[in-house]
Amino acid sequence: MSFSFDLLQTDPRSSARRGRISTRRGAIETPVFMPVGTQATVKAVLPETLLEIGAQVILANTYHLFLRPGHERVQRLGGLHKFMHWPRPILTDSGGFQVFSLGKLRRISEEGVTFQSHLDGSTQVLTPESSIAVQEALGADILMAFDECIPYPAEREYVAASTARSGRWARRCREARTDAGAALFGIVQGGMHRDLRAQSAAGLIDTGFDGYALGGLSVGEEAPLMYEVMEHTLPLLPADRPRYVMGVGTPENLIEGIWRGADMFDCVMPTRNARNGVLFTTFGRISIKQARYADDPLPVDPDCRCYVCRNYSRAYLRHLYQGDEILASMLNTHHNLHFYLQLMAGARQAIEEGSFTDYRADFYRRREPAEALVEEGRNGYC
Amino acid sequence: MSFSFDLLQTDPRSSARRGRISTRRGAIETPVFMPVGTQATVKAVLPETLLEIGAQVILANTYHLFLRPGHERVQRLGGLHKFMHWPRPILTDSGGFQVFSLGKLRRISEEGVTFQSHLDGSTQVLTPESSIAVQEALGADILMAFDECIPYPAEREYVAASTARSGRWARRCREARTDAGAALFGIVQGGMHRDLRAQSAAGLIDTGFDGYALGGLSVGEEAPLMYEVMEHTLPLLPADRPRYVMGVGTPENLIEGIWRGADMFDCVMPTRNARNGVLFTTFGRISIKQARYADDPLPVDPDCRCYVCRNYSRAYLRHLYQGDEILASMLNTHHNLHFYLQLMAGARQAIEEGSFTDYRADFYRRREPAEALVEEGRNGYC
Repeated sequence: MSFSFDLLQTDPRSSARRGRISTRRGAIETPVFMPVGTQATVKAVLPETLLEIGAQVILANTYHLFLRPGHERVQRLGGLHKFMHWPRPILTDSGGFQVFSLGKLRRISEEGVTFQSHLDGSTQVLTPESSIAVQEALGADILMAFDECIPYPAEREYVAASTARSGRWARRCREARTDAGAALFGIVQGGMHRDLRAQSAAGLIDTGFDGYALGGLSVGEEAPLMYEVMEHTLPLLPADRPRYVMGVGTPENLIEGIWRGADMFDCVMPTRNARNGVLFTTFGRISIKQARYADDPLPVDPDCRCYVCRNYSRAYLRHLYQGDEILASMLNTHHNLHFYLQLMAGARQAIEEGSFTDYRADFYRRREPAEALVEEGRNGYC
Repeated sequence: MSFSFDLLQTDPRSSARRGRISTRRGAIETPVFMPVGTQATVKAVLPETLLEIGAQVILANTYHLFLRPGHERVQRLGGLHKFMHWPRPILTDSGGFQVFSLGKLRRISEEGVTFQSHLDGSTQVLTPESSIAVQEALGADILMAFDECIPYPAEREYVAASTARSGRWARRCREARTDAGAALFGIVQGGMHRDLRAQSAAGLIDTGFDGYALGGLSVGEEAPLMYEVMEHTLPLLPADRPRYVMGVGTPENLIEGIWRGADMFDCVMPTRNARNGVLFTTFGRISIKQARYADDPLPVDPDCRCYVCRNYSRAYLRHLYQGDEILASMLNTHHNLHFYLQLMAGARQAIEEGSFTDYRADFYRRREPAEALVEEGRNGYC
């Protein structure tokens, strides 16, 4: 087993942790943000650019790759890393999140889920066993147990039954794994219910996983409730295993997640927002399509040292966006991912220096009031 | 005047020429292909990538930049080079080609052209004088005279009148220029009529330009007719000035243009085809969307040393195209432009070595028969 986690340091005034995950494809310094590469590409960005801006691990979506181009094809072509020309670790989700997002197009049983492909309507099945088989065929370095991501709000009865089933599925995933070089993470469910979260965590710990994730967050609940669930659940997880908060979130969510002891995050927000012209800065989010930027010679963020901010003006980025140019998505994505990855690099350094409290305070201080309010609002974006 | 042209070498067995254009932003080795950057970006590719693959000069479209973001805005922001982060020479077309493409949306008079913006329907005017003013405001290094690109087929009477008017417009452009550091090229029109082409060339030479272009080609005529016009017209132009065949063309068109004495080319074909999944190779064009490539582990062109061919399979490129991924356009564009620029680099070397005849023969020998036939057919793509 080539996977391990070292807890290097803890923050004296919060639950923030500085750690290192070792995988067969190299180390991951935590806390870490994982860019999302749904269809075997992080949209609009080259792998070399990801390396250049410090991406350590990316996430790929099992559901999408299972349907197209197919995991067996990827395996024949040498695995996902070779296929997409990405040398560092890949984490695959289980496919559960997407399958359950299909709504009426899917049917759940104890065995697994039958669903219709969003591509061609064909009937497909994913079970805990087949999800693991797909993830292993792709060659992922970190696999996620197959679970149901419970919507919010949901009836307590449904949450309880679903969470229990996800626990049984997690055990079946544990049994099904064959790739000893890869890690397998269990996913804590339980909705917004403390007791169900605790039961879920206990069950998973009993089964035993290489790492533990919080699923079912950022699904429409208010940020304070999400933080409450993190704050309650993260301490229930083994301190010597990485803790991954799935599908989260805004820059503020990341800071608050780290504060509460989370080590890993993923979200489409920086990449999707980029394609919609929304850019992250140290002073909050800006929408580059606004007319106020038409003549603005400044870079997106004067405090940013990324390639985009060193070479292009807001006026140019607005022009590209208005012109529906592919370069708009390329440059915006580059900047946003750089922002997210720098935010995490800064957090890691602050924890090392015992100053994460200051880092967090500074993060909020630099934001403009209006933007801070936006960030306080509903998220549910990932 | 910082613009000059040195004819370095001529091919012993054809009219092919090896030259060097000097501009205020550096040298351009000819024969040269100029990637098209319509809206202040060569679509789907970073400026650094263009430099890396050997682009020496790019073309920008006056019509598009005039309408959006506006030449005065670009000037206020420091000029087009700074705006788009491109340090090497830029050639701007005159806007004529796009304006005349608008069909019923434009009205021609001796003064110039009144047209309606394709963006917002607003009424706009371009005259020889304003076209030059726009090009100078953008900061182009090579400006093109304002002309009418005559469609094909067209009545001889119309061609004659239009060509004469373009000649008068060219003189007005010559008068209107104020930027002594930039070059101004005249454009030979005359449709497919030898005598009108000769009249047009003589008039322009009489006016006197830094370089001469052939316009009105690749507008729907068969390739042999285009070659005939090149063969007839190019020798009428001064040997000590660069000769630019506008909007041309396929790889074969470039080889045949060089053979007949052309020095400069531009075309959207490599970039537009890339976005449509059509890739250029030494053995002809391939459509990467075809199912036959779904499991193909080979690079696009096993003889190509570009970044894309060194790192990605046909199967991956097909997958990206099928998934409508931005990376498909990025990688396909990179490969196609590399192919075009390498084709020209090879031609330059062959002319230097006195072996352009062999280079041309080898170019055709390597193509697969079916593809060669495709290339022989109608072009009119640019």
